[in-house]
Amino acid sequence: MGKRKKNRKKERVKYSSLHQVPGQVTYVGNKVSEAPSIEIINYSKESVEKSQSNTIEDAFNYNENNSITWININGLNHTKEIEKLGKHYKLHPLILEDIVNTQQRPKIDDYDSYLFVVVKMLYYDDQKEFINEHLSIAVGENYILTFQEADGDVFDGLRDRIDNTKGRIRNSGPDYLMYALIDAVIDNYFTILETMGEKIELLEDTLFLESQEEGITQEIQDLKREILKIRRSIFPLREVISRLEKSEHPLIEEKTNNFLRDLYDHIVQISENLEIYREMTWGLMDMYMTTISNKMNEVMKVLTIMASIFIPLTFMAGIYGMNFEHMPELQFKYGYLCFWAVLILVFLAMLWYFKRKKWL
Amino acid sequence: MGKRKKNRKKERVKYSSLHQVPGQVTYVGNKVSEAPSIEIINYSKESVEKSQSNTIEDAFNYNENNSITWININGLNHTKEIEKLGKHYKLHPLILEDIVNTQQRPKIDDYDSYLFVVVKMLYYDDQKEFINEHLSIAVGENYILTFQEADGDVFDGLRDRIDNTKGRIRNSGPDYLMYALIDAVIDNYFTILETMGEKIELLEDTLFLESQEEGITQEIQDLKREILKIRRSIFPLREVISRLEKSEHPLIEEKTNNFLRDLYDHIVQISENLEIYREMTWGLMDMYMTTISNKMNEVMKVLTIMASIFIPLTFMAGIYGMNFEHMPELQFKYGYLCFWAVLILVFLAMLWYFKRKKWL
Amino acid sequence: MGKRKKNRKKERVKYSSLHQVPGQVTYVGNKVSEAPSIEIINYSKESVEKSQSNTIEDAFNYNENNSITWININGLNHTKEIEKLGKHYKLHPLILEDIVNTQQRPKIDDYDSYLFVVVKMLYYDDQKEFINEHLSIAVGENYILTFQEADGDVFDGLRDRIDNTKGRIRNSGPDYLMYALIDAVIDNYFTILETMGEKIELLEDTLFLESQEEGITQEIQDLKREILKIRRSIFPLREVISRLEKSEHPLIEEKTNNFLRDLYDHIVQISENLEIYREMTWGLMDMYMTTISNKMNEVMKVLTIMASIFIPLTFMAGIYGMNFEHMPELQFKYGYLCFWAVLILVFLAMLWYFKRKKWL
Amino acid sequence: MGKRKKNRKKERVKYSSLHQVPGQVTYVGNKVSEAPSIEIINYSKESVEKSQSNTIEDAFNYNENNSITWININGLNHTKEIEKLGKHYKLHPLILEDIVNTQQRPKIDDYDSYLFVVVKMLYYDDQKEFINEHLSIAVGENYILTFQEADGDVFDGLRDRIDNTKGRIRNSGPDYLMYALIDAVIDNYFTILETMGEKIELLEDTLFLESQEEGITQEIQDLKREILKIRRSIFPLREVISRLEKSEHPLIEEKTNNFLRDLYDHIVQISENLEIYREMTWGLMDMYMTTISNKMNEVMKVLTIMASIFIPLTFMAGIYGMNFEHMPELQFKYGYLCFWAVLILVFLAMLWYFKRKKWL
Amino acid sequence: MGKRKKNRKKERVKYSSLHQVPGQVTYVGNKVSEAPSIEIINYSKESVEKSQSNTIEDAFNYNENNSITWININGLNHTKEIEKLGKHYKLHPLILEDIVNTQQRPKIDDYDSYLFVVVKMLYYDDQKEFINEHLSIAVGENYILTFQEADGDVFDGLRDRIDNTKGRIRNSGPDYLMYALIDAVIDNYFTILETMGEKIELLEDTLFLESQEEGITQEIQDLKREILKIRRSIFPLREVISRLEKSEHPLIEEKTNNFLRDLYDHIVQISENLEIYREMTWGLMDMYMTTISNKMNEVMKVLTIMASIFIPLTFMAGIYGMNFEHMPELQFKYGYLCFWAVLILVFLAMLWYFKRKKWL
Repeated sequence: MGKRKKNRKKERVKYSSLHQVPGQVTYVGNKVSEAPSIEIINYSKESVEKSQSNTIEDAFNYNENNSITWININGLNHTKEIEKLGKHYKLHPLILEDIVNTQQRPKIDDYDSYLFVVVKMLYYDDQKEFINEHLSIAVGENYILTFQEADGDVFDGLRDRIDNTKGRIRNSGPDYLMYALIDAVIDNYFTILETMGEKIELLEDTLFLESQEEGITQEIQDLKREILKIRRSIFPLREVISRLEKSEHPLIEEKTNNFLRDLYDHIVQISENLEIYREMTWGLMDMYMTTISNKMNEVMKVLTIMASIFIPLTFMAGIYGMNFEHMPELQFKYGYLCFWAVLILVFLAMLWYFKRKKWL
Repeated sequence: MGKRKKNRKKERVKYSSLHQVPGQVTYVGNKVSEAPSIEIINYSKESVEKSQSNTIEDAFNYNENNSITWININGLNHTKEIEKLGKHYKLHPLILEDIVNTQQRPKIDDYDSYLFVVVKMLYYDDQKEFINEHLSIAVGENYILTFQEADGDVFDGLRDRIDNTKGRIRNSGPDYLMYALIDAVIDNYFTILETMGEKIELLEDTLFLESQEEGITQEIQDLKREILKIRRSIFPLREVISRLEKSEHPLIEEKTNNFLRDLYDHIVQISENLEIYREMTWGLMDMYMTTISNKMNEVMKVLTIMASIFIPLTFMAGIYGMNFEHMPELQFKYGYLCFWAVLILVFLAMLWYFKRKKWL
Repeated sequence: MGKRKKNRKKERVKYSSLHQVPGQVTYVGNKVSEAPSIEIINYSKESVEKSQSNTIEDAFNYNENNSITWININGLNHTKEIEKLGKHYKLHPLILEDIVNTQQRPKIDDYDSYLFVVVKMLYYDDQKEFINEHLSIAVGENYILTFQEADGDVFDGLRDRIDNTKGRIRNSGPDYLMYALIDAVIDNYFTILETMGEKIELLEDTLFLESQEEGITQEIQDLKREILKIRRSIFPLREVISRLEKSEHPLIEEKTNNFLRDLYDHIVQISENLEIYREMTWGLMDMYMTTISNKMNEVMKVLTIMASIFIPLTFMAGIYGMNFEHMPELQFKYGYLCFWAVLILVFLAMLWYFKRKKWL
Repeated sequence: MGKRKKNRKKERVKYSSLHQVPGQVTYVGNKVSEAPSIEIINYSKESVEKSQSNTIEDAFNYNENNSITWININGLNHTKEIEKLGKHYKLHPLILEDIVNTQQRPKIDDYDSYLFVVVKMLYYDDQKEFINEHLSIAVGENYILTFQEADGDVFDGLRDRIDNTKGRIRNSGPDYLMYALIDAVIDNYFTILETMGEKIELLEDTLFLESQEEGITQEIQDLKREILKIRRSIFPLREVISRLEKSEHPLIEEKTNNFLRDLYDHIVQISENLEIYREMTWGLMDMYMTTISNKMNEVMKVLTIMASIFIPLTFMAGIYGMNFEHMPELQFKYGYLCFWAVLILVFLAMLWYFKRKKWL
Repeated sequence: MGKRKKNRKKERVKYSSLHQVPGQVTYVGNKVSEAPSIEIINYSKESVEKSQSNTIEDAFNYNENNSITWININGLNHTKEIEKLGKHYKLHPLILEDIVNTQQRPKIDDYDSYLFVVVKMLYYDDQKEFINEHLSIAVGENYILTFQEADGDVFDGLRDRIDNTKGRIRNSGPDYLMYALIDAVIDNYFTILETMGEKIELLEDTLFLESQEEGITQEIQDLKREILKIRRSIFPLREVISRLEKSEHPLIEEKTNNFLRDLYDHIVQISENLEIYREMTWGLMDMYMTTISNKMNEVMKVLTIMASIFIPLTFMAGIYGMNFEHMPELQFKYGYLCFWAVLILVFLAMLWYFKRKKWL
């Protein structure tokens, strides 16, 4: 509970820090690193060259036309370095603002000489907490720049494929690399869907447990919130990819379009699954309500059975506890025995009644 | 319950296996056969020839222009064979990926020399479990290829109609055969609707049973999930068929368009019925809630009647059980009799009261 | 209840019988007559001629150009006769299929020489059961064909108006007659709305009755289903009429367009009213839920009042029923009287308390 | 309650009377006057002339081109008179039908020489009952005709403004007068919104009252119905005004368009407010449900506290009411005193327990 | 509560005062100041000049072409002054009406020589009460006029930036200043979102508190109302900004478009967040309902446990309180002891039963 609150507060802080001068590059996220981690991969059909660095200037040496340079920067709080890189690659100031504005929703901006795409890397961290990482991609004629909030991403498989001389990446332009990056991000959404499915299934099962805690409504509400946030990250992507596909930007080669259409299919499929999870989650509260009511029903039945059986019996005992002088039954020799007989009869009649009503 | 969980886990596995290299043909379904089952039907106006095989190369001998060849492959796990066939018929690599990706939603891709359609065969198996089978159809100038996950399909009536020399199939091109295939698939959706209707009706009836188990909310939730999944398979088909009808692809003959429009009518009708079932199912939870509340009302009434009748009577008995020295009633000769008279009066008054309130 | 189920089963049978060869004329409805009932009205500005027959060939004699022939066929199970008529008037095979497919939703098909419209006649029969009758209209240059499932329709007023020499029908083309037919059908929807309104009002009133049966949730659910089915019959009609109005088919005269626009207004008005009924019906379940809860509240109040009043009093009686040797109150001369005084005081205090709480 | 039902029945009657011959002018409303009340205002820049009459022929004398004639007819049951007027001004028969069809929804029809607009005057009468009055406006080159169901309207302010020589009305064409009429109608919708807001607020407050009657769910349901009906009268007006603005009809002067755009803003604003009231009203049922549940909780608490306190005490008293021969406590000198001490202890413990649970 | 009502009444007053002559400038808000507060900022690349005044005529001296004049008027009740200013800058009368009509929704009107934009400044005042302030902006070639209801706004940062010689504002036209003003307004919406988030979180936490008051449903309903009102202020802004961006008005320079697109991204992001809050708030009532039911469950459990334990025990005591002559147990030496033994056994059995049921 305490943890949840802390998270929310952080988010509020983000909102507030958005009050800024337009065009000014201010990092509003909460992942802070000491130095930017810069990874440079320079590849052509013939060769691949990989290097790591902490100074942005190292990234300025790769301007040859016959190779593609992928520069990946981790750590958006180093706005100075990002501005330098932006100047070197002549990015528009508003784009630099978008790169560090982790609140920016997925979008695509096409400028004459480059394309700029914002997507969201979604994953659950080791503590099963949902992480929404801001990823910006700028693609030019022979370079591709990616900006991430922190180390660790979903591109390891991609890095391996670049090493493969015969792979499609090595034989295609930066547009294909961009496609491959977004594809890796979207492929990862499927694991999000899986975790989502597991969470819903877990909640469904929890609803029927006896020892269930009160916090379950809060959990359902939180799951709703999570789904709504994921939706907000995924839905705009449909339009982004659709516009990528339809844009006739010179950077997008004809043959890449087929792959983009495939990507579009995937993102639509993810959205549809998400909508199903949404419906399922919204249904959980109703399920919970019926579970509570069923439990109350059970409690009430126990009370009713106990009370209905013993109240008449107690009444009978009360009768013969009276001190009237003339109570002939009290003097009967087998009065007490008869009393017990009637008692047991009433008791059995009650049992039979509740049995017939299926309450027992 | 155990079964349901297993199914879900399988699905999650599918999601995970989607992390793949684009264009790579990987089967992600869970129906595995040892050898592909290949069925070849070659027909023209004059003659029909049918054969079965397990080796894909047998399918390469039918290239004559004056006959139509329908090659049906069962078993999508044989990706090698499918790739071979794909190469022979010059299908795009992404199409091969879609053929074996059982998670692919219904779609249509039109290439210059062929059309590619993905639809979903939906049916309930013998255990009344819902089966969603992936079906891909590729149509060229004189061939039609169909890819299914497993043996058994809804095309037996179609196979018979091919034998009929005077049937429309024999006198039309492959576009009509494609129409007939999709029509057979969609016709089968009507049985899905029927089963759906039966399930909802059964649940509605179950809600009023006395001996109803708690699992009913889970059943409603599962039915919701099923409807949402069927929707996801059926809804995209509307657009697929609409695009087929409007596409002016040279493979689609003018006279087939009327049939496609008819198909569109059918799929819209199915969607509308599905929406009605959706509304009905969503209403079930409310119905259940009122049923529970009605039952609780009944339980409460029993308790209230029992308690309201016997608590005052017990009180009366308690009064004359007191040991005050001066209680004149106790000495009255007919005290005990009077007591009983009053008791029965109170009892009858209570009964009358509850009768008037319609609680009895 | 038994009746309801039978109806549903019939419907399912319909679905199943839809598995058919495309273009084949198979009747899927459940209204069967022994012989088709054919009604022929031939009219021009000057004269009207009416005849009844059971053989379709009688309808082939009216081909003159200077008069309009309205042929009305009741009984869609006589597919042979309908096929003959279709051949005579050169109707497309798919249209013949639509004529007998009672599951076909409202639609319009425009062919070069004729228009084909499907609408639904909705009414409640004598047993207040909802009837959805399939009506197909084919309009050519000097003829109009109508196909109904059974005898009895909403066109009697229309037949009278044809007799009127000065009426607009006699002075207009078949397009106006088609308009008048659809107008009669739509006018009848208003009675459907009325019955709907009555049903909802009745249910609302029933909800507050004491003696209400459990079946009311089923009734609400059934009403929902009915509204959804009516919607499905009415909503597509909006598009049908809108397309009729906008189509520039040579059969539709300019002056008829104003009437079609008027028709469109009516159907929109009906749809809007239906949506209101829909909202009202969906609200009924909530109303019912609150009614149940209110009743439970009342039950609980009775229990609480009875228990709260008598439990303390019984306790008091219990105290003086104890057998302690030293209980000074028991020996007091006015002990018993005092006891009663206190008892009545407590009783009155309780009454006052519940009165103040407004529970009495 | 009785009143409400009567209203509904009237409405049903209206529906039924709609079964009519197209183009026939039949009044379907329920406001009937003995003679039509005809009001004629003839004005130009220089002069104004006002007159009242009961015979329609008096309205035919104002045909001069240099003045504008506003003829207002109250009483739609005088269909003969309306037909005469219609003939005089050459209105289309279908327009005459719309004038007297009080069920007609808001719409605009543009003919070559005149415009025809239907709007709804909404107001609450003295008994706070919602009144929906049908208003038709026909605008020609130098005349404007308005048709109302009954005397009394929202145009008094407008009539005053016509007297003002310098006002915009006197210096503009009939299009501006039409605008001013619709503006007056729409301005009145704001009072509807106010009453709506008051009603919702009242209901919200009523929900928390102790002495609340059961009828509140019916009131909420009725309010829903009222909002839905108002919506149906207001929403189509958005399109009407939008089309008025966009139509390039020669009757609409360029400078009037700005005013129409302003009108459009108002109607959109009203629709938005109505949607808010809609959401609020739909939320009322949930509020009521929680209120009921809260009350039941309170009832249950009283019962539980009373029962939990006195049942154990009664048990204790019962113990010492037993007649065992060997019950040493009964002989103790201070037995009775000890008993009371324990009793009070238990009582206080119970009180403390319920206090801690915040039930007291 | 009293406060809330007062607010509502004020709003109703506003609605009523809208009944007015079109084009007449009548203030309908409720913030009234004695004299208008006029602030004039005249700036060019080289210099800035700021002045304050209470007389509108002071604003007429800034007509030079080489500088931009920003005139900000606080106090919309001074309609005379606003009309004077309007005449000076040749604003259309309807625009003057919109400036003082605080009920006007956000909109954009483009006239030949100026643009007119209405937006809403939203903030919470010191008493955490939601304030919706009407802001109108008119932009001409070298001037910008802003009209606010009261002193105090969100433009202080902007005023500082104007002082900065190198800032983008000083080097751009009035279109950029307009952008900067709207940007400041929208940036402030983020604080609204924050407060909203806090309020929802607070309500969620309150739902689980023991000592929760009944008023919580009213609070949820009020929050819903607040969200709906904010929505109404924010949603139209999407279209306003989209139209600003797409309009090719000569006043909007090409380079400003990028900033407007950025603004559009922000407003979409705000709308999306608002929708999430909406969903969350709508879910609160369900959460509350389950909380109430859970509490009732707890109450019922206490009652059931108490009653189920003591009712049988009291019955047992009642048995041995009977006065039958022949009750052998009463004479047993250890009868009383045995009785206690059985009593405790029954008591423990009950405890064990409830423990097993997890009710204790």
